[in-house]
Amino acid sequence: MADPTDIMAEIARRMSVETPQAAALGIELVSVEPGKAAMRFPWREELVGDPATGVLAGGAVTTLLDHVCGLAAASTGLSRTATLDLRIDYMRAAKPRQAVTGQAHCYKKTRTIAFIRAVAFDDDPDDPVATAQAAFVLNGAPFPGAAP
Amino acid sequence: MADPTDIMAEIARRMSVETPQAAALGIELVSVEPGKAAMRFPWREELVGDPATGVLAGGAVTTLLDHVCGLAAASTGLSRTATLDLRIDYMRAAKPRQAVTGQAHCYKKTRTIAFIRAVAFDDDPDDPVATAQAAFVLNGAPFPGAAP
Amino acid sequence: MADPTDIMAEIARRMSVETPQAAALGIELVSVEPGKAAMRFPWREELVGDPATGVLAGGAVTTLLDHVCGLAAASTGLSRTATLDLRIDYMRAAKPRQAVTGQAHCYKKTRTIAFIRAVAFDDDPDDPVATAQAAFVLNGAPFPGAAP
Amino acid sequence: MADPTDIMAEIARRMSVETPQAAALGIELVSVEPGKAAMRFPWREELVGDPATGVLAGGAVTTLLDHVCGLAAASTGLSRTATLDLRIDYMRAAKPRQAVTGQAHCYKKTRTIAFIRAVAFDDDPDDPVATAQAAFVLNGAPFPGAAP
Repeated sequence: MADPTDIMAEIARRMSVETPQAAALGIELVSVEPGKAAMRFPWREELVGDPATGVLAGGAVTTLLDHVCGLAAASTGLSRTATLDLRIDYMRAAKPRQAVTGQAHCYKKTRTIAFIRAVAFDDDPDDPVATAQAAFVLNGAPFPGAAP
Repeated sequence: MADPTDIMAEIARRMSVETPQAAALGIELVSVEPGKAAMRFPWREELVGDPATGVLAGGAVTTLLDHVCGLAAASTGLSRTATLDLRIDYMRAAKPRQAVTGQAHCYKKTRTIAFIRAVAFDDDPDDPVATAQAAFVLNGAPFPGAAP
Repeated sequence: MADPTDIMAEIARRMSVETPQAAALGIELVSVEPGKAAMRFPWREELVGDPATGVLAGGAVTTLLDHVCGLAAASTGLSRTATLDLRIDYMRAAKPRQAVTGQAHCYKKTRTIAFIRAVAFDDDPDDPVATAQAAFVLNGAPFPGAAP
Repeated sequence: MADPTDIMAEIARRMSVETPQAAALGIELVSVEPGKAAMRFPWREELVGDPATGVLAGGAVTTLLDHVCGLAAASTGLSRTATLDLRIDYMRAAKPRQAVTGQAHCYKKTRTIAFIRAVAFDDDPDDPVATAQAAFVLNGAPFPGAAP
């Protein structure tokens, strides 16, 4: 069983050293508990893709989902994670001038892999902007595809 | 047929307004031609995920592939694109203290959708760090999943 | 609003004309209600991939998830569906000499697209053999990527 | 290095024992060489999803791509493979009353994982019906996500 201190250290690492783009973009931690995480991407004028619509640039949602999935993987109590695969479906544009929230859930974990599902939304998780399904390598295990 | 000026305007937009995270992270344009694009993520010490390895943080590869796919979609000559779906497989960690390059190719385009494949690598495109398959909505067409 | 008769007709069609491989393989309907569907792939000796393990051949899980996702899309009340994209993650081999059950849920539906998540398991949905995320075109709408 | 006899044995196994649905549906081997495979799904009236269009049922393309990816993985010379993940994008319906061909290429292989890309088409590989990206576990290696 991982030491809770390690977990928090990993989370702190994810929120800082490993995620300068998260920090630079102002991504905020909403909550984290074992197997679940939520992060928030506040609306900012300079991140608007199209001034005519006032909607957050699309890459913001990708970045948010990538980070919140990684945080949910880390929150399972294992230090060091790496993305193995990530897939995102985008349902619609985000709403103008609104923050986007990402919620991720680790629905299955083994010794070396965490499987995560996530959703990004503005107001209502049941009316998502995008959904994600991802797998993360845990605990510093080598990539399954790494050379012998 | 789109006006070449529009294409360059779209590309300029992607490289600036819409991609502050790309700019903030120092992602560089390598080349762009109709249906093909290449971008480069230079190695920077402050983007290292794990000081013990000197390897670029994983989110950097996600961000690079997202942007280079979007640029390849834009390069097909249609202004305004949005990600419809994106999936990435990670083969291995990037090499320590090295830049990562992303190459994307639009292998199929219709009136409203561009289908893209991309690869991220350090030295050799045939020894990829990660590969991506994506679909982008073109030309300001509504998301297929948008409400009526 | 679709006529319930159309829905049942579509479901009947999916279970027969359109799914000879489902029928040929003995895939069974477990339940269907608006937005949700369950199907079951009974274990059969001749579908075992490796006699040493007695485990159902891997393609069986793919086929089961493809069909149960399509059925969940059809169950939303719109006649005629087509797969737009489908992605499956496999967590482990199925258990020897056991049936595999697939459960699918349409978590978001618009006029033309249904977004589905599904899980395949032997005993326990929380210990999945595989998970899927899919999008289906509804109502005979053209593929988003169809030529103009 | 795997014994060529093992490779052919694995391929023979894939074409028979492990793929009763392939056999039942009449999927044919077109060609196989190390890292590449092609299979063909002949048009058959009883596999038509919609009599009004005469187009092969959608699940046929899924099944074809699943099998041809597995065959390309097997063709790399390692006996025993299992799908780890599979994702398919569908571009358009197949043409009426025509066979569909699947071509798969293993673009990267390590000791335990084969990464594959594939395309399904009727006339022209550059005008695909669908494309796939997949990873297969090789050589009887355990699933990366298998319990300890």
